[in-house]
Amino acid sequence: MAQLNHSKNSQKISENSLTQRINNNILSLALPKNDISKAMNYALLNPGKRVRPILLYLVADALNLDLKKIDPIALSVELIHTYSLIHDDLPCMDDDDFRRGQQSLHKKFSESTAILSGDAMQSEAFKIIAENNYLNAVEKVSVISELAEVIGANGMILGQYKDILFENTEPTKNEILEMARLKTSLLIEFCILCPVKTFASLNKAWLNLARSVGEGFQLVDDLLDLSQTSQHIGKTAKKDLMNNKKTFPIYYGKDATEVEIDKRSKISKESLVKLGLHNCLLSEYIEKLFHRTN
Amino acid sequence: MAQLNHSKNSQKISENSLTQRINNNILSLALPKNDISKAMNYALLNPGKRVRPILLYLVADALNLDLKKIDPIALSVELIHTYSLIHDDLPCMDDDDFRRGQQSLHKKFSESTAILSGDAMQSEAFKIIAENNYLNAVEKVSVISELAEVIGANGMILGQYKDILFENTEPTKNEILEMARLKTSLLIEFCILCPVKTFASLNKAWLNLARSVGEGFQLVDDLLDLSQTSQHIGKTAKKDLMNNKKTFPIYYGKDATEVEIDKRSKISKESLVKLGLHNCLLSEYIEKLFHRTN
Repeated sequence: MAQLNHSKNSQKISENSLTQRINNNILSLALPKNDISKAMNYALLNPGKRVRPILLYLVADALNLDLKKIDPIALSVELIHTYSLIHDDLPCMDDDDFRRGQQSLHKKFSESTAILSGDAMQSEAFKIIAENNYLNAVEKVSVISELAEVIGANGMILGQYKDILFENTEPTKNEILEMARLKTSLLIEFCILCPVKTFASLNKAWLNLARSVGEGFQLVDDLLDLSQTSQHIGKTAKKDLMNNKKTFPIYYGKDATEVEIDKRSKISKESLVKLGLHNCLLSEYIEKLFHRTN
Repeated sequence: MAQLNHSKNSQKISENSLTQRINNNILSLALPKNDISKAMNYALLNPGKRVRPILLYLVADALNLDLKKIDPIALSVELIHTYSLIHDDLPCMDDDDFRRGQQSLHKKFSESTAILSGDAMQSEAFKIIAENNYLNAVEKVSVISELAEVIGANGMILGQYKDILFENTEPTKNEILEMARLKTSLLIEFCILCPVKTFASLNKAWLNLARSVGEGFQLVDDLLDLSQTSQHIGKTAKKDLMNNKKTFPIYYGKDATEVEIDKRSKISKESLVKLGLHNCLLSEYIEKLFHRTN
């Protein structure tokens, strides 16, 4: 990936350097030394793709913001994402034994430890933002308010609820797309929109970019679940099919899904052009997300 | 209970009026109209004692604060407390089928709905504080930061983890007391200390009051579990014994527990005298907590 330098950020950034930055921030979390923190670290340090925090940093970089202001938000979002995976993998939810190429948390530790670790990660996510020294109080409140909305009973949790509900119902195309948006897309949209809303000003192009990337990401994910091996994607493949999940590709097939993905890829490119960001790390990374194979 | 009037609070307050206020605030939660919110409301509107929010209001009243500033904090704490009960009752945790005299959430709905409802309640708790109009940004950040610390991997969750761990180990007296403090006391201490820290100034007497009430509350709770019927306490009685829990009364007996409770009752009274609050609704309510029978 090409490197780009912005005035506010003294070091050249890249996907690798951002991944390193995220991992270092995870390692510097001041967790208590006990089995709960051991479990939290096990889940957090498993080799994830860090898509959400990387998007946050790349948007901030495109806006020429000080990345120090993004550190707490990026760490917080990775905690939220990891907690949601831990709870999703539980036997009473998606019942998955593997995650990021390793045993899922409840298999490695126990169900109760998995539930409690996820719960603690959510608290920690809000604490990190509230206690940070680089954000002022108004910025913190804005970020916390948006994040809590996106992951709560109107957002991510509602999506996960519908995902499980749909195992035993026959949702419409729009209901499937809405479920996927709630479950996955909203948090990705948050990562693109949060730096804009908090430190710059929002417009239609940013909203379109966020939504197309968020929805596109989940469509690609659902397609990979069907078409790749478990080893390649680091979690049980074809699990959606086995669990009677109602994903878009299961219902409408590979070709129709690729049409939907292409639509969103096109909108994201047009939005990036409108924002004058069609030739930077952010646009390269988004292009890569649309064409990823794991 | 006697009624007391303070200048800031136009209406006379009582335990009943505060319970009503809390219930009204729960009812006015802008939850989405779906099964997740149905489950959240089922758990939140079950007839709990509302000890934590009542303590918040009574401390605020003793400090002559505007109770409108307490509304979001009180609602948030009741959400956190309810979420912790829902997750504690799960089969892989304490496996309790009854709560507040009714079926626990996973029995009434499902395990996945119980986990998701608890998760959403935690998000909602932080959102309510972040979005409130009566607190300024600095106050919000202070409350969120303290609350997240108290309920996370250094606090409530660690206590719950130890509580389960101790089912298969032989903890010392201090370890049992520490577990109970983390699991229950810290959130009650938060309710007493939060209005003081956020809107007034903290001193040793407040700290002693908070700790003695918090620890005393859990000791009374553990004693009631052993000595009362299920019908009377609204949850399965003697469950601690059946679950091989290591509570103070199970290990050291009724008499030794009453000695510990009396110690804390005495400290709380002395602290209230030092604070000049030995003859108000707060002191009456605390006295009642030490002598409750359900």
